[in-house]
Amino acid sequence: MSEQMQQLREILGEVSDLGRAAAVLGWDQETYMPRGGVRARAEQLATLRRLAHTRFTSAEVGRLLDALAAETAALDPASDDASLIRVTRRDYDHSCKLSPELVAEISRATSLARPAWIDARAQSDFALFAPYLEKNVALNQRVAEALGYTSHPYDALLDRSEPDMTAAQLRTLFDELKAAIVPLVRAIAAQGAVIDDSCLYRGYDEQQQLALGLQVVQQYGFDMERGREDLTTHPFCTSFAPGDVRITTRVSRDFLPMALFGTMHESGHGMYEQGVNPAFDRTPLCRGASPGVHESQSRLWENLVGRSRPFWQHWYGKLQAAFPAQLQDVDGATFYRAVNKVSPSPIRVEADEVTYNLHILLRFELEMALLEGQLKVADLPAAWNARMQEYLGITPPNDAQGVLQDIHWSGVGFGGFPGYTLGNIIGAQLFAQVHAAIPDLDSQIAAGEFAGLLGWLRTNLYQHGRKFTANELLQRITGGPLSTAPWISYVRQKFGDLYGLAA
Amino acid sequence: MSEQMQQLREILGEVSDLGRAAAVLGWDQETYMPRGGVRARAEQLATLRRLAHTRFTSAEVGRLLDALAAETAALDPASDDASLIRVTRRDYDHSCKLSPELVAEISRATSLARPAWIDARAQSDFALFAPYLEKNVALNQRVAEALGYTSHPYDALLDRSEPDMTAAQLRTLFDELKAAIVPLVRAIAAQGAVIDDSCLYRGYDEQQQLALGLQVVQQYGFDMERGREDLTTHPFCTSFAPGDVRITTRVSRDFLPMALFGTMHESGHGMYEQGVNPAFDRTPLCRGASPGVHESQSRLWENLVGRSRPFWQHWYGKLQAAFPAQLQDVDGATFYRAVNKVSPSPIRVEADEVTYNLHILLRFELEMALLEGQLKVADLPAAWNARMQEYLGITPPNDAQGVLQDIHWSGVGFGGFPGYTLGNIIGAQLFAQVHAAIPDLDSQIAAGEFAGLLGWLRTNLYQHGRKFTANELLQRITGGPLSTAPWISYVRQKFGDLYGLAA
Repeated sequence: MSEQMQQLREILGEVSDLGRAAAVLGWDQETYMPRGGVRARAEQLATLRRLAHTRFTSAEVGRLLDALAAETAALDPASDDASLIRVTRRDYDHSCKLSPELVAEISRATSLARPAWIDARAQSDFALFAPYLEKNVALNQRVAEALGYTSHPYDALLDRSEPDMTAAQLRTLFDELKAAIVPLVRAIAAQGAVIDDSCLYRGYDEQQQLALGLQVVQQYGFDMERGREDLTTHPFCTSFAPGDVRITTRVSRDFLPMALFGTMHESGHGMYEQGVNPAFDRTPLCRGASPGVHESQSRLWENLVGRSRPFWQHWYGKLQAAFPAQLQDVDGATFYRAVNKVSPSPIRVEADEVTYNLHILLRFELEMALLEGQLKVADLPAAWNARMQEYLGITPPNDAQGVLQDIHWSGVGFGGFPGYTLGNIIGAQLFAQVHAAIPDLDSQIAAGEFAGLLGWLRTNLYQHGRKFTANELLQRITGGPLSTAPWISYVRQKFGDLYGLAA
Repeated sequence: MSEQMQQLREILGEVSDLGRAAAVLGWDQETYMPRGGVRARAEQLATLRRLAHTRFTSAEVGRLLDALAAETAALDPASDDASLIRVTRRDYDHSCKLSPELVAEISRATSLARPAWIDARAQSDFALFAPYLEKNVALNQRVAEALGYTSHPYDALLDRSEPDMTAAQLRTLFDELKAAIVPLVRAIAAQGAVIDDSCLYRGYDEQQQLALGLQVVQQYGFDMERGREDLTTHPFCTSFAPGDVRITTRVSRDFLPMALFGTMHESGHGMYEQGVNPAFDRTPLCRGASPGVHESQSRLWENLVGRSRPFWQHWYGKLQAAFPAQLQDVDGATFYRAVNKVSPSPIRVEADEVTYNLHILLRFELEMALLEGQLKVADLPAAWNARMQEYLGITPPNDAQGVLQDIHWSGVGFGGFPGYTLGNIIGAQLFAQVHAAIPDLDSQIAAGEFAGLLGWLRTNLYQHGRKFTANELLQRITGGPLSTAPWISYVRQKFGDLYGLAA
């Protein structure tokens, strides 16, 4: 390694350590921290983040990156060193474009908007939140201007998390999805079958639920020597190193899917982080490629595996044995249908696989319109409800269950929602690819064997960490670009079958 | 506040945040971290500590302290501002005297010595540890030289944690203690009574033990809105702010005192930290005065309160109700005697109140001799065993239960052990003072009321944080210097009574 590469790695290691320390503090805040710790924790996190930002955006890093760009120019772009310089440069340019003043203003605005949003949602009173959202929209616009863009400010925001993806590309994807989903939802409604999912709402002992969830994800391959699971209010996954990946969940006695599928979901994020090449440790390459690619793994293990027929062929007997009183009169087919029931809901996080992307489409369109200034914050609730009616045929009973439901807009992070839909699409693309590579995958899953699937994902995706963008990864793995076709084919087949629709 | 004071406070706040972040990472490491996290956690902690050290020892801090010394010269030395400058200057001078190279060498030596000590203890083979201890002794000597001293190198090491305390002062204290303890231990042995403590070894449900321990310390006044308790191997207390203080414990089904008295002990440390004046937040004043004063509080709540007759007058009925099968045939007097049984043990952490200080005396003398070069590491096991025989009348069955028992010498921290004895002495001095101030203290404790005691400790001790040294605090609170008399009087009375010795 050249001396300059060594110097850069030392600084990146320090920045990584600070970021990971902040992640530990964040995890603790959401799992164990007593209420009295809030104020001091905010100071500690602000200090760690400020130090990390200052160190990373120092002129020294710029000089080293300039020098190393020349040094790595001759390398294969897919090599580790070339990727490290390319990805670090991208992060560096983004970080440097945001002035410390703007970063501080965003931090302050979020601190003020978060409690306002909590109040507004509790009282279902959008007016309480509107002035803060106006401020946040303006800050999103300022961030977009600071980052720069060619055709649409949304591109600037998107580029931070999903490099080389554009609003235009998303628009195309969403159009394709909408064209497929809306008729499917209508066909399901027209078919008239109502799935009985009452078996999911029987009292399930929480400790047994958690134990079963852990049993499933350990069989998936989530390594408890290099991770753990804890309880929290809003589940998440966080990584402090490939050897220390924490997943979290919540559990309801009266709703079985919450902990079970939630744990599967987070384990997908977790196995991704546990699978990153250890050689990338303490560099910007040492995490998943992007929010969209990350979500592809949580959705894959939760839905494509965890809500599949083969999965329950193996696991339903164990579930029944764990909860005989609740499930003795429920057969596997009934249970499979229950956990796959399609039912338009006003709430995104409760949405089924078919309608989920429509919730994201709605948010994508509204963020675009707000950014452009075409939609005023005051008109947002009406615009929200109109789209809910148009896409899902329902109107939220109130703003708390409508425009105020998500935490996201209390922060300054427009451009984040599409990651959920990208996750669904990419997950289906990759799963189709695995099926092609492992023809008996379904039989393996039905036998409770996941090593083949996990091995393929590690080799083709996880180990690369953040070396490649989502588009680059899809090109490498599938030989083609991002495509909605596998996901559309998946939902048409699965739910057509489930609801007895004509092919 | 002057501009310079403002500047200093900002830097101290940053240093404090880094230190507290490291404390959170340390807490996590000892409670929840999976094994796979070890290596990355070491990097994160090293980075945080290095950044804190560099920032704190910067020339800017020196300049600000110089300027502020002049500014605060006219103030009452007991004022908050004058104390902040005085204490910060002391820390600054200490930190600056240790070169980054020496600090790094100590860190490396500890990293190597720790696993060697673990192996050596596991195999009870001192030779495996000896070369590392030789290195550590040499480093202790170098630290003493770097810090400087007038009469004995031990003074330099002691001064870091217990400012204005000297080896000579400790020598006097230990001589007084030894003169009192050795005859007392002999008298107890000669009296011939063997206390039956078999009731402590009956199978106690761990969850119930933990719940009861928390019930006790919450009644003491440990605030669970500003703290929590978790499980660990080697219990400790750590503070991330007065609003977030974590205690830890361990629990054995077959030995009731471990969790119960351990929790009381840590809650004493915890209530001290919770009671520091919030105005000191994010400064060097925002923690307990010194290890010795800290230990005075853990020992006070564990022993002077928790192993007292009045305490069990109130609590024994509750304990019996929680564990009827184990305790229905045991009366309160028998239980009280069981938890106060005097029995020389080779193991420090299992020692009773009477013999505990002899374990510390032995270590104090051996550290002095090693530092002076009068004792060679190779001769340490023999010296250890000879003193054990002389002071306690026993010989450890092997080095694992002798010279290798403590983790301390695997680090570079000579001068730390006397804190335990200082804690016993100071605790008894303060407790005598509280008794004088609150004549019906015993009745309050027997009624399960601790607000009077806690209030007195908060007002007279806890709120001051690190403003005053141990000696200064004792002068302020008791009107006199550190004195062994109250502790000697306490053990003579309590154990004379318990063992029916002539007064």
